[in-house]
Amino acid sequence: MIKVETILAHGTVIAMDDAFTLITDGAVAMDGDSIVALGPAAEILRDYTAAAVVDCHDCAIMPGLINSHTHVPMTLLRGLADDLRLDVWLMGYMMPVEREFVTPEFVRVGTLLGCAEMIRSGVTTFADMYYFEDAIAEATAQAGLRAVLAQTVLKFPTPDADSYEDAIEYCRKFIEKWKGHALIVPAVGPHAHYTCPPEVLEACVTLATEYNVPLHTHVSETALEVEDSRKQHGMPVVPWIRRHGLLETQLIAAHCVHVDSGEILTLQHAGAGVVHNPSSNLKLASGVAPVGEMIAANVKLGLGTDGTASNNDLDMFEEMRLASFIAKGISHDPLAVPAKTTLMLATIGGARAVHLDHLTGSLEVGKRADVVVVNLTGLHNTPRFARDPELVYSQLVYACKSSDVRDVWCNGQAVMRDWDVLTVDIPTVMEQAQAIAVQIDRFLMTREGNLLDKLIAIGGIAQEESYEVQVKVAVEDAAQVDRVLQQAPIRVERSSVRRQYDTYFLFADPTQGRIRYREDELLNKAGAVTESRYSLTFTEPAKEREFEQSVLLSRSRFTARADRSLRFYREYFRPVNEREVNKERRRYHILYKETEFAINVDQVTTPNLPGWYMEIKSRTWSPRDADKKAALISELLALLKVDPRGVTRTEYVEI
Amino acid sequence: MIKVETILAHGTVIAMDDAFTLITDGAVAMDGDSIVALGPAAEILRDYTAAAVVDCHDCAIMPGLINSHTHVPMTLLRGLADDLRLDVWLMGYMMPVEREFVTPEFVRVGTLLGCAEMIRSGVTTFADMYYFEDAIAEATAQAGLRAVLAQTVLKFPTPDADSYEDAIEYCRKFIEKWKGHALIVPAVGPHAHYTCPPEVLEACVTLATEYNVPLHTHVSETALEVEDSRKQHGMPVVPWIRRHGLLETQLIAAHCVHVDSGEILTLQHAGAGVVHNPSSNLKLASGVAPVGEMIAANVKLGLGTDGTASNNDLDMFEEMRLASFIAKGISHDPLAVPAKTTLMLATIGGARAVHLDHLTGSLEVGKRADVVVVNLTGLHNTPRFARDPELVYSQLVYACKSSDVRDVWCNGQAVMRDWDVLTVDIPTVMEQAQAIAVQIDRFLMTREGNLLDKLIAIGGIAQEESYEVQVKVAVEDAAQVDRVLQQAPIRVERSSVRRQYDTYFLFADPTQGRIRYREDELLNKAGAVTESRYSLTFTEPAKEREFEQSVLLSRSRFTARADRSLRFYREYFRPVNEREVNKERRRYHILYKETEFAINVDQVTTPNLPGWYMEIKSRTWSPRDADKKAALISELLALLKVDPRGVTRTEYVEI
Repeated sequence: MIKVETILAHGTVIAMDDAFTLITDGAVAMDGDSIVALGPAAEILRDYTAAAVVDCHDCAIMPGLINSHTHVPMTLLRGLADDLRLDVWLMGYMMPVEREFVTPEFVRVGTLLGCAEMIRSGVTTFADMYYFEDAIAEATAQAGLRAVLAQTVLKFPTPDADSYEDAIEYCRKFIEKWKGHALIVPAVGPHAHYTCPPEVLEACVTLATEYNVPLHTHVSETALEVEDSRKQHGMPVVPWIRRHGLLETQLIAAHCVHVDSGEILTLQHAGAGVVHNPSSNLKLASGVAPVGEMIAANVKLGLGTDGTASNNDLDMFEEMRLASFIAKGISHDPLAVPAKTTLMLATIGGARAVHLDHLTGSLEVGKRADVVVVNLTGLHNTPRFARDPELVYSQLVYACKSSDVRDVWCNGQAVMRDWDVLTVDIPTVMEQAQAIAVQIDRFLMTREGNLLDKLIAIGGIAQEESYEVQVKVAVEDAAQVDRVLQQAPIRVERSSVRRQYDTYFLFADPTQGRIRYREDELLNKAGAVTESRYSLTFTEPAKEREFEQSVLLSRSRFTARADRSLRFYREYFRPVNEREVNKERRRYHILYKETEFAINVDQVTTPNLPGWYMEIKSRTWSPRDADKKAALISELLALLKVDPRGVTRTEYVEI
Repeated sequence: MIKVETILAHGTVIAMDDAFTLITDGAVAMDGDSIVALGPAAEILRDYTAAAVVDCHDCAIMPGLINSHTHVPMTLLRGLADDLRLDVWLMGYMMPVEREFVTPEFVRVGTLLGCAEMIRSGVTTFADMYYFEDAIAEATAQAGLRAVLAQTVLKFPTPDADSYEDAIEYCRKFIEKWKGHALIVPAVGPHAHYTCPPEVLEACVTLATEYNVPLHTHVSETALEVEDSRKQHGMPVVPWIRRHGLLETQLIAAHCVHVDSGEILTLQHAGAGVVHNPSSNLKLASGVAPVGEMIAANVKLGLGTDGTASNNDLDMFEEMRLASFIAKGISHDPLAVPAKTTLMLATIGGARAVHLDHLTGSLEVGKRADVVVVNLTGLHNTPRFARDPELVYSQLVYACKSSDVRDVWCNGQAVMRDWDVLTVDIPTVMEQAQAIAVQIDRFLMTREGNLLDKLIAIGGIAQEESYEVQVKVAVEDAAQVDRVLQQAPIRVERSSVRRQYDTYFLFADPTQGRIRYREDELLNKAGAVTESRYSLTFTEPAKEREFEQSVLLSRSRFTARADRSLRFYREYFRPVNEREVNKERRRYHILYKETEFAINVDQVTTPNLPGWYMEIKSRTWSPRDADKKAALISELLALLKVDPRGVTRTEYVEI
């Protein structure tokens, strides 16, 4: 008789190993952090003795579930704003609230809340990407769960970093602190290819490689994202991130909704983990990942809830059921992603996807004791058929609920026994969470009645780039500008001519910002109108930083297609004043020293201004980059022989 | 102070009336079977006094949910067989088990089990279609739920009727017994247009019209069904059932997955109820109903779980979440079917769809007290945002679980209080259900190793028509037959010539039936092969009923496309004997006295049989119809001048 700490006895052992071992009256022996033995209950109880023998009659004993993609502290933003377009939801609610509220304390409370919910749904491992991952790691370790925690890196300032360089630095310290921890695997989290320019992606790859940690990122979540990648990079997302080295890391690629067969093979060959998030992808109307094809191609595929803000819970049982149903429905094949495969995705598949399959995801001797006991006697699981042991897979996936999970061990530690979560003080955490929600409600209510909210209320808003270096200068000879632009070292990528009729709505309180309604007529060479576009732009007052000649503008601009009349908007926004600005604009997109600039040469007809004005603009995302671009703008002004005394900071509408 | 029985106080009242009334600190006063008042808690408690004042702080008080399409006794078949193709699932499992097990006692236990599960998920009304509806009505009334119960009618013998005439008769008695009951609305349930020929449909319409009761049927669930309707009737399903009067009844049309815009308008104009069953439609890979378009067209749209055999539960909270998610995902519109609309579908929408909106579906003074209290303080519903009262819709639809339902009243009677179901003895019902499951397991296990199971195991099986009247007779002159067939009163609809190479697998126990592998070569007029088809047919021994010359065969035949080699099947089935039958077959599809017959004129080459054999066959579904067709066959034999002494009952393979 060998002594062990715990034996789970007389349940159906669902091993999820390569052989899909099923033992009807089985047992699992655990000692320390590991699984010591599993087999028929009679044999295990003959060979082992334990301080605690847990009766598992009428239960499944199975590996802890792996939630392979989430943003766990966002549990605090559950139900904050729903049924909105992605951009409105993100730009109008999530980002403003995150900017205002996300702190180490916020993520601590959110993590504990999320961990408690995940424990109740049988999760023992999750892969996270958020801010202040160090505080998330502390809370996760406290809750006793295993996690791959990726510190977010992106080009914009974030709650925990003013620049991407700061984020990388934070991430490095985070990795050094946590690497080697029994439960926590630190990781690098470049948010996405479209929020991380190549140098940011490459800095993340370098860091992940240096410390040999996973790299967690969002890949091809929306069709638009892929379309943009094709336009900007001439290729879809997977080749683009491969070019920047991401496929050479232990990659966790969340979503992969819009990937083609070639990309799937690329991901498989690279051994990348892919995470399917059916609830989130459906709720945000992103689409449905080609799960059947990925499984057939033997991709390391896992399942995730994504953050609760887009789900709205962390329930892996719901996620399993949905993953199976949606795969069948979309493929018109009732045999697609059967229950057994689905449970595989949520266990060993997820473990592979987050690169932890040597430790968890299946019940095998020597693996960590990440084990869940699920009660199968619920009313909603009655009756049960027993002629084929494999029917237990369909019980678990199609009928079980998270509330059927009775016990959870992670790394050998009991984190839930008899539906009682042992590692999180749930009432206290719920109280703290509710207190934060009250503050967020208050914050959002003060926004009520303001312009942005009114704009959001009528839908269809997209935030434009917030940071740009720009200069505006009076020029005497537009033809001279045109001539210089057509010569080296400047290269004109494309140009257009348009007439713009702008109506500005001005309000009593100028700090509210203003709304612009624009009719944009595109002209061909003969001067005929080829297309008219109508847009509505809300501009908040800009924050500025001055350079020698140019200025760094940091401002929030929200633009919507204006599909209603000027009259409608006038009545809707009720401006105290209006102003018209009409102009003919020649717009150039140029490349100078491998840097993109937009140049507008405007002849303003209303109000009737003499001569022309030229604007030079470039988008930027870090102080260092802004410095470089400001210097290039000065060089361009010299090349264009523009008198720097003509530089103006006044906008047309203010003239 | 007005005295009432019960006041639910201090919850968020979600009325689901036309104005979508929301009362944050609200109350509902109930007396007898009805809602007497609702409003702010302060006002209701000022004006009314009650024996029982139920505290609903942190709860939603809302209308009971309406499960608008289900087969509630099938709860006993939950998880019996999953991840199978529809035909295999239906023909291979559901139908054989139903034939064997469905009795009044079976449906009683299944109904109580299903009602208990529905009560726990907040359902107060459901619309059912099954067999022995009288026993279902007894059990439903016992459970205290409101229901529209449709007695199934179809052309095949069913567990409760040997013919459709018997089913109609059963249904008439059922209606007469239950019409006017406080909870039960009896209804007519023609199973579907493809299982009910026009005379069956019309008999159902007549009955529904005579008693002014709803008519519940399956409409356009699968693409194949619509394709078949177009082929056979020259129109899709909705116009077909309109032609037969179904749209003039109080129609409940389940599924409507594959309906076009014209059909949607037709359904709307007719005031038909339509029921969306997202779980079932996805799980069986039938597709997704055009819910957005139906809502926009103002169709009376409800939500249903369908039977648990294809779900696998009766959880309307899961159904709501899925309905909303799938609509967004499929339409690529995150604003599609928002939470408020979804809750509408599950309450007042469902009430309209089952034609009970004058009684239930919303909280309004004078309506029946069908009221549910949902606890909103679950961990999975934390935190809660309060700045906008409408956020409660997304809490209910996106985050709540059925386990959050705390109390349920139906028709003024408490059926669940504090999670305790009061009207069903759950442990006893679960025990009875499990006992039935054990019997079903035993029944299916005895099938193990038999031919059908083996055939099912390799997939792709479809059951052919089981009942036909047929005669086989030796003929001396095939040309003579051909001549007669080309003349009035016979009309040849189409004919073909083919060579058939059949290999029969024979087994030790002839009651096992046999397997036929057939290569079917279609020939053109020049005698060249234009197409080859390979099929596998399993034939169970036939039950016969003799007529003067012809015979009524009742036999189960399962046919699959044979996409593997004869060698494979030989090794797979291991027959004890094989026999070859090769023949040249001229096949005619004829119309005689407006009745369809198939006529085969065969020249059998292996074994080498002299002369020709002729078979005349017609499908049938009722004894009366079989009588009529047997008489027509005798007339045909006379017309064809065939010597009735040549009639044989021996099949080629037995010669």
